[in-house]
Amino acid sequence: MINDNTITSKDNPVIKLYQRLSSSKKDRLEYGLFVLEGLRIVEDALREESGITHLIVTKNSFEKYGDELFQADLRNTKTIVISNELGKRISQTEQTQGVFAICRIPVDKKFSFRENGKYAVLYGLQDPGNVGMIIRTADALGMDGVILCGSCDLYSPKVIRSTMGSVFRMNICIENDTEKLFAMLDDNNVVSCASVIDTDAERVTDCGFTGSQAVFIGNEGNGLPREISQRCTRRITIPMNGTINSLNAAMASGIIMWELSKSR
Amino acid sequence: MINDNTITSKDNPVIKLYQRLSSSKKDRLEYGLFVLEGLRIVEDALREESGITHLIVTKNSFEKYGDELFQADLRNTKTIVISNELGKRISQTEQTQGVFAICRIPVDKKFSFRENGKYAVLYGLQDPGNVGMIIRTADALGMDGVILCGSCDLYSPKVIRSTMGSVFRMNICIENDTEKLFAMLDDNNVVSCASVIDTDAERVTDCGFTGSQAVFIGNEGNGLPREISQRCTRRITIPMNGTINSLNAAMASGIIMWELSKSR
Repeated sequence: MINDNTITSKDNPVIKLYQRLSSSKKDRLEYGLFVLEGLRIVEDALREESGITHLIVTKNSFEKYGDELFQADLRNTKTIVISNELGKRISQTEQTQGVFAICRIPVDKKFSFRENGKYAVLYGLQDPGNVGMIIRTADALGMDGVILCGSCDLYSPKVIRSTMGSVFRMNICIENDTEKLFAMLDDNNVVSCASVIDTDAERVTDCGFTGSQAVFIGNEGNGLPREISQRCTRRITIPMNGTINSLNAAMASGIIMWELSKSR
Repeated sequence: MINDNTITSKDNPVIKLYQRLSSSKKDRLEYGLFVLEGLRIVEDALREESGITHLIVTKNSFEKYGDELFQADLRNTKTIVISNELGKRISQTEQTQGVFAICRIPVDKKFSFRENGKYAVLYGLQDPGNVGMIIRTADALGMDGVILCGSCDLYSPKVIRSTMGSVFRMNICIENDTEKLFAMLDDNNVVSCASVIDTDAERVTDCGFTGSQAVFIGNEGNGLPREISQRCTRRITIPMNGTINSLNAAMASGIIMWELSKSR
């Protein structure tokens, strides 16, 4: 399975594919593939059998991590070794570990609703670091699912990296149609809660979250559109100090999910 | 006060100073100055009278934001206008607003302890984005102070940017000597709480935080050194899902500060 010829050329077709998938959402959609970088997240993907088609390691990393990586079931994975220079070239981090993968975007993974489920709806979030951090936090706090609506691409390298592997464990769906989103929540008896900055809204500390609940988190700069917060059944808020309404979107979501998770 | 000659040269002494202060902690310490970039944070600094020595705006931004910026008391500030190209050159953001400043590092600002004060101690945090986000969150949640010990430079552009202006409002001190840090807490009757990943520790939800309390947050990768967590009076933890002990350091601090803030 190991190709003994170390690849040094940036024109190698796998390397070219890797770079296209790194930079283009259109290519990710077209090929149904996305990329991973980093030892831990590649190991997570291997452990969760997340459909890695290509494992790409630099010469140095092959020596360093090879034994570890090859414990996994690699029967459906093509492994290639590349030069350290080429590794630096395709890396998107400052100090690369030299471990990369190309991975299939899951198509048959069903989003599941659970009894008393607690969900986060990311509505129009644009910062990949925030989206990744929220998925990671949702996983750590035992949330039942994350729904993306009009947010940045889940499969962009920066989102994937920021999830720290939670993208493989978490129940996630993408539903960019607002009507379908609300219909889906209604069909599953999930109460919609808009998180807003409004002193008249229910304080997140005072309101119980029994039953199935989905918290809507809005865009970093603008929050939730008015029509969305009005359409939600509840409006909840984090009491804050003085005039400062400036919790980062990921931090605000984290605090709300923390309070939600207490009602599980 | 306005220099009519738009500066275009990267060799202009103020521009050279700005760039040195952007990139070198040594220079920041030597000159006792640091830099700001962005309209909102520069306005925050002007509002809080934070010792801006130089206000630097690009030609475009001068036209766009000049009226707004010049509402402030600029009697001790030298204002210079630079070309848009030079603005792009000195910017550390992808899309610069063309508003920059050089600011004095406060030397006479006393850290204050308050009755029933709640503090965060950032012990060995290395990620500037995390440090900035924690200071911002501490401000929003009404914490009484943040103490940095062995953490990254508070005055690095990335920390300053991530605080979103909270650096000018928050009670902050830098105390890199662990002995002095504990002595300072003892002298002010502040109970030290180590935040740890340990199922035997007090759950952050179960333990009251009455009286003065300081929560120690450890390094992103390694957490708190054992000798520090043992030296603290209390050990507290965030109950988490399964085996995942992977809340980001800023997120974990945010949740703990949120719980602390309920005891105010």
